[in-house]
Amino acid sequence: MEQLSIAVAGLGRMGKRHVHTLIYRVPRARVVAVCSTVPEEVEWAKNNEEYKEFGIAVYSNYDDMLAHQGLNAVWVSTSTDVHASQTLAAIEKGIHVLCEKPLSTDLKEAQSVVDIANQHPELKVMAGFSRRFDASYRDASDKIFQGKAIGSPFMVRSNTCDLRDDTGFFVRYAGRNGGIFVDCAIHDIDLSLWYLGNPVPKACWAAGTLQHHPELKDLSDVDNAVGMVEFWGGKIAYFYCSRTQAHGHDVCTEITGSDGKIMVNVMPRSNHVVVADKLGMRNQVPPEYWQRFEDAFAVEANEFTEAVLKDKPVPLPLENGIMVMKIGRALQDALLTGQLVRFDENGERV
Amino acid sequence: MEQLSIAVAGLGRMGKRHVHTLIYRVPRARVVAVCSTVPEEVEWAKNNEEYKEFGIAVYSNYDDMLAHQGLNAVWVSTSTDVHASQTLAAIEKGIHVLCEKPLSTDLKEAQSVVDIANQHPELKVMAGFSRRFDASYRDASDKIFQGKAIGSPFMVRSNTCDLRDDTGFFVRYAGRNGGIFVDCAIHDIDLSLWYLGNPVPKACWAAGTLQHHPELKDLSDVDNAVGMVEFWGGKIAYFYCSRTQAHGHDVCTEITGSDGKIMVNVMPRSNHVVVADKLGMRNQVPPEYWQRFEDAFAVEANEFTEAVLKDKPVPLPLENGIMVMKIGRALQDALLTGQLVRFDENGERV
Amino acid sequence: MEQLSIAVAGLGRMGKRHVHTLIYRVPRARVVAVCSTVPEEVEWAKNNEEYKEFGIAVYSNYDDMLAHQGLNAVWVSTSTDVHASQTLAAIEKGIHVLCEKPLSTDLKEAQSVVDIANQHPELKVMAGFSRRFDASYRDASDKIFQGKAIGSPFMVRSNTCDLRDDTGFFVRYAGRNGGIFVDCAIHDIDLSLWYLGNPVPKACWAAGTLQHHPELKDLSDVDNAVGMVEFWGGKIAYFYCSRTQAHGHDVCTEITGSDGKIMVNVMPRSNHVVVADKLGMRNQVPPEYWQRFEDAFAVEANEFTEAVLKDKPVPLPLENGIMVMKIGRALQDALLTGQLVRFDENGERV
Amino acid sequence: MEQLSIAVAGLGRMGKRHVHTLIYRVPRARVVAVCSTVPEEVEWAKNNEEYKEFGIAVYSNYDDMLAHQGLNAVWVSTSTDVHASQTLAAIEKGIHVLCEKPLSTDLKEAQSVVDIANQHPELKVMAGFSRRFDASYRDASDKIFQGKAIGSPFMVRSNTCDLRDDTGFFVRYAGRNGGIFVDCAIHDIDLSLWYLGNPVPKACWAAGTLQHHPELKDLSDVDNAVGMVEFWGGKIAYFYCSRTQAHGHDVCTEITGSDGKIMVNVMPRSNHVVVADKLGMRNQVPPEYWQRFEDAFAVEANEFTEAVLKDKPVPLPLENGIMVMKIGRALQDALLTGQLVRFDENGERV
Repeated sequence: MEQLSIAVAGLGRMGKRHVHTLIYRVPRARVVAVCSTVPEEVEWAKNNEEYKEFGIAVYSNYDDMLAHQGLNAVWVSTSTDVHASQTLAAIEKGIHVLCEKPLSTDLKEAQSVVDIANQHPELKVMAGFSRRFDASYRDASDKIFQGKAIGSPFMVRSNTCDLRDDTGFFVRYAGRNGGIFVDCAIHDIDLSLWYLGNPVPKACWAAGTLQHHPELKDLSDVDNAVGMVEFWGGKIAYFYCSRTQAHGHDVCTEITGSDGKIMVNVMPRSNHVVVADKLGMRNQVPPEYWQRFEDAFAVEANEFTEAVLKDKPVPLPLENGIMVMKIGRALQDALLTGQLVRFDENGERV
Repeated sequence: MEQLSIAVAGLGRMGKRHVHTLIYRVPRARVVAVCSTVPEEVEWAKNNEEYKEFGIAVYSNYDDMLAHQGLNAVWVSTSTDVHASQTLAAIEKGIHVLCEKPLSTDLKEAQSVVDIANQHPELKVMAGFSRRFDASYRDASDKIFQGKAIGSPFMVRSNTCDLRDDTGFFVRYAGRNGGIFVDCAIHDIDLSLWYLGNPVPKACWAAGTLQHHPELKDLSDVDNAVGMVEFWGGKIAYFYCSRTQAHGHDVCTEITGSDGKIMVNVMPRSNHVVVADKLGMRNQVPPEYWQRFEDAFAVEANEFTEAVLKDKPVPLPLENGIMVMKIGRALQDALLTGQLVRFDENGERV
Repeated sequence: MEQLSIAVAGLGRMGKRHVHTLIYRVPRARVVAVCSTVPEEVEWAKNNEEYKEFGIAVYSNYDDMLAHQGLNAVWVSTSTDVHASQTLAAIEKGIHVLCEKPLSTDLKEAQSVVDIANQHPELKVMAGFSRRFDASYRDASDKIFQGKAIGSPFMVRSNTCDLRDDTGFFVRYAGRNGGIFVDCAIHDIDLSLWYLGNPVPKACWAAGTLQHHPELKDLSDVDNAVGMVEFWGGKIAYFYCSRTQAHGHDVCTEITGSDGKIMVNVMPRSNHVVVADKLGMRNQVPPEYWQRFEDAFAVEANEFTEAVLKDKPVPLPLENGIMVMKIGRALQDALLTGQLVRFDENGERV
Repeated sequence: MEQLSIAVAGLGRMGKRHVHTLIYRVPRARVVAVCSTVPEEVEWAKNNEEYKEFGIAVYSNYDDMLAHQGLNAVWVSTSTDVHASQTLAAIEKGIHVLCEKPLSTDLKEAQSVVDIANQHPELKVMAGFSRRFDASYRDASDKIFQGKAIGSPFMVRSNTCDLRDDTGFFVRYAGRNGGIFVDCAIHDIDLSLWYLGNPVPKACWAAGTLQHHPELKDLSDVDNAVGMVEFWGGKIAYFYCSRTQAHGHDVCTEITGSDGKIMVNVMPRSNHVVVADKLGMRNQVPPEYWQRFEDAFAVEANEFTEAVLKDKPVPLPLENGIMVMKIGRALQDALLTGQLVRFDENGERV
């Protein structure tokens, strides 16, 4: 049986989970290597029984890992500032790439990755917009586009609200992520483009506030923000991002059309359990996007693997991320300047 | 304008609420008198500013109250053991009666009230099955019988589960109520007859347990019980009654038919508020049937008032309660004996 | 017993409902008169059996009605363009006023009503922000301010989304209501000021679209709009208003604080009924704000009545409406111009 | 890496799914063979591209498959009437067995399988009560036993209600499954024993009805049934099984304790999507137990695999199924005779 030999770059929280997904959910892929530049993570991986059992080589250097014999593909799960360079290094070596979103917080750099990837049609290069692989979001898409369940969609509301992180982990990495609208709302922006049929932005505005992480001030960021995008053609999207939710990872989307509305995860729940006691009736909420999107990551990894093995197009064109990033940056700029950001009818900022 | 002069017998929790309903929700009725045999309640009523404002006379004796000048009707809201005698006393004086369910825990006595009432077609005598006046239960009925929403209904599950009462109030009055299936399940039995089209019972069984009120043992009662009724013709109802819920008054009903199911209040909520915090997402639950059925009592009182003023049939025939009671007693007997109780095709116990 | 003699001005949908509320839910008030300038409505009222039964005089002229003997108070439920003049006419005659929101779509006119009312401390003049009297919104307030359930509130999301009206009724009256943010979002703005502790606006922006009522274009209005308000001090509110919902009247509010979130009516339901059938599990949604807020109107009317009879302050100061209107007008201006609207630290537009 | 070589017996709906689970979710197992006695299924499997890709041998005979070289384990997923004989045949050959529930519809036969398995402690033999591996049921267990979330549990309500099958598939196999309480309620009975701490049955009764599959009459079965079990020590369980639900696979469980209630899947939903349109707000319901329990099957298969590879006890003792079956048979007998079935304090029928 043909299997894809894949490596995972980065052994942070998500890197470890991607290794897990590949082992447990992607029978046509084999994780042959991992790497990290963090000594503790390398040490941890070298002592990991499961990694030994499944024969996973551990590297402390990305380029060394790329040279691993027989390597076909790499899942880039490092911090955003090296996504572009690592993706390009892999392309150069003829290695397929599944790169965590976003390709870069810098639009030009992101565009250059897209351009170079397009020069290598023999390689599969994809950015991981995991929600595109989620069963509920896909069901919403089917209902909207095949089922015409809501008539013509014209408005999207979408939230990405994280559980408050009191460990300091989030703040430690916040400087590299490009700001709340680039790091957090990027999925929501992507969903709005999906469900509204790739509309062109006309203007956007945003406002934010610091409620729990005053350190973000020095990074020109906030921990709660609301942003609105008006598109040409009478479509609208608006977003709420938060780093400070008490109840869990609350990520919901509503798509309103001329004849109805589709709601995805408006009342989040960890599982099927409800407790009734002195406090009333309650359910728990997933603590992280991992619990919400674990299945989506498995679908994504399987579809990417299939695209490589069967030489099919990747399920999500790499170009997609450019407009998402453009809007994310515009919202972040609006947030910081307090000004409206306007676009022309081609979606270029004016 | 013609108004109904009505009195309320009993100033326990429900009696006071009925006075409130009559004042605030029934413009065609005027509460002219109340009575209680409990000195504290009489005292309380005499000092009540609202009662003074609305000109409500306070009696310490039911018969004296019946003699109140101009009295047209009485709402009997005393303990179950005097329902029958007070209803009969009113009938004798030519006074219309709205009597709390059940007419009596003794079937013969209940039947005799029905018989005597039937001899007085000029008087409106009605037993208060309040759920019959609830908007949700009526909507369920409309959907089932007019809308054919679930095809042919063949099964009812219905619960009456009370918040645990740690004040001792419940246990104090438990001796007079006829047992858990007579006091508590009587509404559920009534609903099952309603939605199943007045089927005839064939057999029933029940089991119970004492979880919180061991004193009930001496009263031959339990604080949690499940009962099942098989009807002739392939219909089934089953009930759960409880006195010990931690989360509130949980009263739900499911009606299953050949083409669907209707659920009433399966996830109870106090109001439209949900709190999301460290414990997850939660809503409160009404503490008592009053909060759940306050509107139903207002509808009931208005419809009874209208029946009297306009000489229309009462919305719920008095006879209705007899079969309900028959089944309630059978379930209570099954609970106490551990035996099946069987009925013939006429619904007579065998 | 002392009763308030009250009249209702306007016999449109809401006027009729207010008469109903007064008759059925406000025992200390007596509706003595109604008026309308619409001949059909006057005719309808004159022939109405219930109005006859309760002795309600019918006028075709507001000023004539104000001269009704013994009249104490008036509930102004006419179209917005005459709210101010009718309120002032009543004040001039020494009659208490409960006026539907808003006092005027013109800020100066609204302010002048407030000023004149303040010169008549002997009169109770109140604007009807009915949601302030809703049990769920009050519970949210109690949980937030007494219960500290969500820490410090800093963000409000609030929607007022109406069922699509295909009768033409809505469009016919749209010209008089001041625009979607003045007519529709005004309650949401009021709620945001309530829950955020009367913050001062800093900037706002809005975008809208025409989906179903192209006629609104000529009225400089839209049928769906999103607006955001940034307040001084790091607080934010955002609103979605719609005239075109397929599923019913969907009016929800979320208040986010440092330690939690309170959601009001995020999943609207008509009653306690859920239908399970081939389509899945579903509940209906109230068609209009009347079904959602009927109880709130009764509370409002009772509290206003009590304020008059007992000479207590009205539950909601008349001044409140001014800032609400200021923000509503600013959002409407932002919507029409596409520009940001800014305020100084005193809440004056710059 | 050590892998378990496993075969799947039976290629009906569930057999195919088990192959899928093993391929996609169990990295430490390798499906080496499948078998079926149904020629069409054998043909289908031989032509299946995925089976070829993963090197799965296809047999038309169970014994031949058992002789497959290097085979370590078998997942018995055939019809209930051959569960016992196939399990014993595997044991005889020294092959580990994961057998679908129940081991047999005949209690003696089931007991003999248990006895023989106990004579082979070197072999792992487990019956597949898949709900024991479901995240929500496990969370309920943790909350009850570790978290003491509901005090002392004393009552279980549990439903297994299948979507109506109009293809004839269900009725075709109904004759082999032992009746509705043995086939359908067996999981619910198992859950009640789990959550109530393995109580001993005292008495049970059941009633059923034929609503959609009159052919079941000849098989002495019904398509809807309710059953109650009273346990020694004041505990109670009751069950509703159905073959005729219009809305989907509706499988819920409520566990009531002295201080609270835990509800599992009381409002079933296919995914996170809610549609709001003219019909109100609705979600879909999973059509089959597969969609509800797909993850549980993966957990089960992984835990069984780990038990074999690491020689650990199977997660669920084989004996467990005997009492479950005893109660299932008693309920089925009660259903057919209309009589109470009683047990002594050792759980032996009297």
